[in-house]
Order: sequence, then C-alpha cells, then structure tokens
Amino acid sequence: MRPNNLALITDFYEFTMAACYYQKKMFAPATFSLFIREYPPNRGYFVSAGLEDVLEFLESFHFNQEDLDYLDSLSFFSKDFLHYLSTLRFTGDVFAIPEGRLFFKDEPILEITAPIIEAQLVETFVMNAINLQVTIATKAARCVHAAKGKKLVDFSLRRTQGIDAGLKVARASYIAGFIGTSNVLAGKLYNIPVFGTMAHSFVTSFEREIDAFRAFAEMFPEDTVFLIDTYDTIIGAHKAAIVGKEMLNRGKKLKGVRLDSGDMASLSKEVKAIFKEAGLNDISIFASGGFDEYKIAKVIEEGAEIDAFGVGTKMGVSADAPYADIAYKLVNYDGRPVLKLSTGKRTLVGEKQVFRITDGNSLKKDIIALRDEELEGEPLLKPVMKKGKRLQSSPSLNEIRERFQLEFSMLDDTYKRLVNPETFPVELGPKLEALQKQVIFKVREKELGES
Amino acid sequence: MRPNNLALITDFYEFTMAACYYQKKMFAPATFSLFIREYPPNRGYFVSAGLEDVLEFLESFHFNQEDLDYLDSLSFFSKDFLHYLSTLRFTGDVFAIPEGRLFFKDEPILEITAPIIEAQLVETFVMNAINLQVTIATKAARCVHAAKGKKLVDFSLRRTQGIDAGLKVARASYIAGFIGTSNVLAGKLYNIPVFGTMAHSFVTSFEREIDAFRAFAEMFPEDTVFLIDTYDTIIGAHKAAIVGKEMLNRGKKLKGVRLDSGDMASLSKEVKAIFKEAGLNDISIFASGGFDEYKIAKVIEEGAEIDAFGVGTKMGVSADAPYADIAYKLVNYDGRPVLKLSTGKRTLVGEKQVFRITDGNSLKKDIIALRDEELEGEPLLKPVMKKGKRLQSSPSLNEIRERFQLEFSMLDDTYKRLVNPETFPVELGPKLEALQKQVIFKVREKELGES
Repeated sequence: MRPNNLALITDFYEFTMAACYYQKKMFAPATFSLFIREYPPNRGYFVSAGLEDVLEFLESFHFNQEDLDYLDSLSFFSKDFLHYLSTLRFTGDVFAIPEGRLFFKDEPILEITAPIIEAQLVETFVMNAINLQVTIATKAARCVHAAKGKKLVDFSLRRTQGIDAGLKVARASYIAGFIGTSNVLAGKLYNIPVFGTMAHSFVTSFEREIDAFRAFAEMFPEDTVFLIDTYDTIIGAHKAAIVGKEMLNRGKKLKGVRLDSGDMASLSKEVKAIFKEAGLNDISIFASGGFDEYKIAKVIEEGAEIDAFGVGTKMGVSADAPYADIAYKLVNYDGRPVLKLSTGKRTLVGEKQVFRITDGNSLKKDIIALRDEELEGEPLLKPVMKKGKRLQSSPSLNEIRERFQLEFSMLDDTYKRLVNPETFPVELGPKLEALQKQVIFKVREKELGES
Repeated sequence: MRPNNLALITDFYEFTMAACYYQKKMFAPATFSLFIREYPPNRGYFVSAGLEDVLEFLESFHFNQEDLDYLDSLSFFSKDFLHYLSTLRFTGDVFAIPEGRLFFKDEPILEITAPIIEAQLVETFVMNAINLQVTIATKAARCVHAAKGKKLVDFSLRRTQGIDAGLKVARASYIAGFIGTSNVLAGKLYNIPVFGTMAHSFVTSFEREIDAFRAFAEMFPEDTVFLIDTYDTIIGAHKAAIVGKEMLNRGKKLKGVRLDSGDMASLSKEVKAIFKEAGLNDISIFASGGFDEYKIAKVIEEGAEIDAFGVGTKMGVSADAPYADIAYKLVNYDGRPVLKLSTGKRTLVGEKQVFRITDGNSLKKDIIALRDEELEGEPLLKPVMKKGKRLQSSPSLNEIRERFQLEFSMLDDTYKRLVNPETFPVELGPKLEALQKQVIFKVREKELGES
C-alpha cells in the first residue's frame, strides 16, 4: 500500500496541538532546533545528510482532499480548522548545515522558523529524514575510514528496514565515500553507479559450478566476477582459474572473484596464490558477508588480500547504533526564548549558529552561539529556504560527496577511532551561554516557584 | 524523490543472472525458500508478517518504459533481453505461513515456485518486506508480553528507518497486539486507531504551563491528557490536578497525564497519590521515553502505576536486533533439488511444508518436511498464489491480530522469556532428512570430487 501524499506522515498530537494553536489564534513565528543529544556508542562525529528530502517535503507540503477526509473521519477537528489545513503551505525559513559536512552533538543541524502550526506539523517527517540519513552516512563513514582506501559497495537492500531506507542507505553511503550500490532503483533515482556479481542460486541452478562460471564469462566477458564459495572456496578458486585461462585464450580477462563465507584473511591469500600459480594476475578479490567497520578493520589487520568489500546489512541498518538521539525542540516562540527542564534533556534556547574553527589543515573546535553573535570561524548553518522557497538549487550528489571527503580528511584520527573516540571540543558562545542561564532562571522562577 | 514503480527494487546481480538464464534458455521452474537461519539475541520465536506487501508486489510486478530505459543506459543488456523484460509478469505459485502465525528458525516462511528469472528478480523485495515486518512484529510481541496486559501504543515514527518502515512498524506492532499508533498516515492506510497527547513544544509555547493545560482541556474536553514533565513532573502534576478540578466543575473529566522522563516507577506512584488527594480518581498514567520490552518489564517489576505505554524508537527499529538473518535460497531447479555447502549456512532442499503439533492448548513441536510428506499436525504453509494470481482475498488486519493473539497464548512462557529463552523443538521429517543427506552426498561427489 503506497501513499500518494506524505503530509500525514506525522504524529497525531501535531494535529491536536495545531487545533489548539488555531483556536487560540497562535500564528506567531516559532523556531524549532534539530540536534542530536548524545553520541551513539563509539561515535565521535556525525555526517550531515537528509536535507534534500526535507526541503523537497517542505516545498510540496499540503493536505489533499483524501487526507482531510480522513482527519474529518476521526471526529476530533472542526470544519473551520480542516478548512484552514486545506489552504496550509509551508511558508517558513530554514537554516541548515549542508549535506556532507561533519557536525557534533548538541549542534543544531537545522533550524526552522515558521508560524508555529507549520513548524509543528512538519516535525515528524523532518526528524525521520535527518535521523535516518545521518545515522547511515555516519556508519558508512566509519566503514570508509576502516577500509583504508579499499573500495566499498552498498549491498544492504535486502535487509534494510524497508524500501525507503534501502534508497536512502544507497544515497547516504555514497555521500560517505562508497563507490556504488547493488540497489538498481537507487542507481536510477540518484545516478549512483550500480554493481553486482552473481548469487549462489545462479551457481546451484547449473548442473555444475564450472558450467555457471562459463555461462557468465560468455555473457559478460568484460565484467566477469565469479562467486566461488558455493561448495568450497578453494576448489571454487581452481575452477575459476580454469575458466579464467579459457577467457585468456579468447583474449578476455577474468576481472575477479567474490568470497562470501569462511576466514576471509587466509582464504583471500590462498585464492590469490592459486590465481598467481595459474598465471592469472590482477584478479581482484571482492569480499562480502557480514562486513561492517569492525570486521573490515579486523581482516585488513590480519593482512587479507581483499580489493573491495560488499558491505551489507550491518551498515544498512547501522546495526550497533540503529538510531540517533535526535530531538526537534521549540527554542523561541513569538520572540520569547523557551526551553524545557526535563531531567537529563538539555535544550539550547534561541536561534543559533555554529562557528567552525580550523587551522586550514584540521578542525580545531566548534562554537555554538546565538545566530547574531559575531565570532571567528565559518558559520556552518546556511540559509537554505526563505518563506517556503529554496534559496539555491540542490548541489549534486558528487559535490556533496567531495565536500564530505575534504572535511573528513581534516578531522583528526583520534575522533575517528572505531572504539572510544575522543570528544571533539564544542563550546558555547558567550551570548548564548548568558541567555541560556537567564532563561533557565526565569523559567524556574515562573514554573517552579523558585527565586 | 519517490519512485513510481518498484520493480527496480532489486540487486543489480539479479539482472546479470537473469540475462544469462535468458541467453541459456533456462526457463524451467525454480523453487526458492525464504527462512531465518538463526535467532537474533534473546529471541525464541518469530511472528509472521509482511506477506500482504509481497503478494501486492508480485501481482503488480512489471517493468515500465522508464525502468527499461535506465537498464538500457547501463550498456549491459541486449535489446532482446530488455524486450523480454518489458513483457515479463510474475506467473509463479506461492506457499506461505499466514501473517500473525508464529514460526521458528530454519522453517520456510514462504516458498516461491516460478520460472527462474521471475523468482530471481523478485528476491530482494520479498526478503526486504518479510525481514522488516517479521523483525518488528517479533520485537513488538516481546513488548506486549512484557507489558502483562497494559496497553501499548506505537510512538516510533520520528525515528524509524524511513517512511516505509514507519508505516510497516505501525502495522506490524498492531498485529502483535499494540492498540494503535501515533502515525496518522498508517491510521489512514491501515485503519489502525491513532493516539496522541501533546508535546513539550506545546507547553513551552504558552506563557505558563497551566495556560497550555487549560487551552488543551477547553479544546478536547473528552480526550484530555497532559504532558507534565516539561519543567518538573511533581509540580506539573499539581497544576494538572488544578485544571482537572476545573474540568470537573464544568462536568468534564481529565483522562490522564503523560510522564516522559525521570524514574517512572516512583514518579507514577507520587503522581497517582497527588490526583487521589485532589479527589480525582481514575486518572490514567501514560508513560513514554525509551521504552522497550526490557524497560517495560523493569518498571512493572518495580511496581509502577502506569496504565499505558508509548513505545517508540527502540521498538520501531528493533534496536537490540535490527535485522534477521533471513535467506532466500534456491532449493529446487527443473526438478532437481539443490543446495549450497558454504561454511555454516545450511539450506534445506526441495519444496517443503511445516507441520505444527499441539495438544489443543499449547504448541508442542514443529516438523519441517517435504511438501508431499504426510505427517500429523497442521500444515502451516498455505497456497496463497497460483500462476501469479492470489487464491483468496486478504484477511483484515484485525483477523491477523486475533490469529496472533490466539497462537501466542498457546506458546509456553519458557520460549517467551525476554532473556535466554528456551529453544522450541523443530524436527526434520524423515523424507526431507533422507533427501537432504542424499543431495549433500551427491553435491560433494560432483563438486568436491569426494566419493
């Protein structure tokens, strides 16, 4: 069942709150700030991703008749309010950290300023889009870091959490430096290179393994990669070498083989030796099967002779950290800075900016400040939407990818460690710090009766 | 960017393999079997879910001109093959365990028999759909078991892995016994009850917390639930009690309050006492914030006076086990039973059936057998599609939900333990066991040169 409009991708309470705001004539501008409270285990940075989806959603935000009929059927909302919704469009301003940039915990990735009903109704979609792509781009960046220059391909589609995730994983991992994906629809939609070899079913569907290899070599002589572990990796390698030599006799070249099970470090060395002995050089070894940053680092450490990795499920669901502690909080309403005091959940008040300080070669520190503070460093949040219209056309995926690569190379390895990374220094600007204290004081006085 | 057709939701190698099958005129029927190899940590059962999406996909499977143009642009495929794809529809047969039924590791959830190209091209979508919904339905069932009759609502949409997952999580958790969802679009598409209260932003947007409570009570007097932890849960409860008494004076009744942070067990008791003292009885306490089966079990163990839980992210991504080790394997081609021997990855050959043996009150054991074995017990795999057409109309979501509830009550608690459950007994039928041995022997002889 596939929806024809996404405006109802929202939590029901957004509508009950909106109905109250409408009733109380609360149409003043509200600023909501999107940020991640804590690093998931073993994370020391985040990769910005998902903004393109957010902007596309905001630009086309509207309720169609079917949506309104459904809301009406719930017997919660007045005709007046439903009529108001029928004309509603997103008319707000958006500041955001561009896709492909690094950011750190507590830093606003995105701030929306709009009439409170609009800013409230888009909350769920905005959080969902950014949470998923940041989570995956960050996981993928960790894989790229672990792979030390070896090529990575996204193989996750069969076990991503749904189709939408499958597409976004291909996109986010490409941003983080993967060279492509097995996901054909992602290839089409995002113009990402697609890759693939053969499955065990292909091998077993033929009477003999070597028949399968021959059929494939005949069909795709320029792009022949055999999966050799269906029955036994070493025996499979010998058969692949036979077919590789047959190809050579026809003036063609076997490109590589794929290993999908067993001890990758020792098997990869044995297999390379078999090809060398057969006089077949430069046969690439492609490895797949349960890889993530930890397993990639391990097999490289063990001296595996692997040229490229197919990285699947564990990257595609970010298995060790499948979500971020992302929050979308009201920080300003009608000119009044606001926050909540709930246990252990800090929100930074007001419209903000993040200033990044580098020495030209490496990232030194970030300062979270009020948007009108004038501080040294590059302001990371850029105005991307004004009165509901985009301020610039979208960068290409390759531009985003290059932006990431450049900045990632400027982040010190201590923050990139796969386990227990250092915490990157993030400070508060003086004006923000002062306002924060003042607002907390006022709120405690007003709501808790303290003085 | 949203696709208009899902046939390209597949791995690229499905097309290279299909091109070879086409070239070699391999159009014979193939049977693929979908099963889960291992239990994720702390799992002792799985809940079947996702079949409806699979059948919908198979019935409408086709490539449109845009899909074919994209494939053509890759310069991999002949015009002949692309023309063949343009006419391709799914014409196979499907046996499946109905949604809402329990199943166990190694058991086929679904078997597809179709010309090998068709069965191969649909692999990725089929795996994706079943993997996600089984993973979530199983996680949600664990939450329901832990909640011991308390009500659960799906609150996960903001942090599910994408929009598709958000919808499927609402559906799968409803099957497993949740009473509804916050996800409005899921409510509309699947006719699931929607629930919601208010957010912290609602409270902070008003000058004072009590103003927010009053505005909401005025607007929704029949369905008033206050979020009381924005500034301080206990002080918030006292303010809620004031507004609750005001409502009472107007002949209305405060329905409940929501706690979203802090020590839930002690806070819930304190809050209930505050309402009792104020003469407000039957105020429901709704709790949210990081709940999953473990945290639900813990607060109930601690004597929390909570009436309902909003269960979010950790259920919605199945955080402790975000995927299943699901496989879709060729088990028969052109009348020949096949398998692979890859290290640690057993596949059971042939077209199969699962027989379930109960004593009328509880599940005793399952037997995985060849489809033509005649054994005692209920055959779980039902014919659901024949020559590409569904054999029956879809059951309603409520029927599936009731089916689950009934069978889940028949599964002994030892298999439902949240940590280290017992392993449910699953045996192999005699004919399957004999065929399995015979095929392994033959394959080893043929491929590994053993005798």
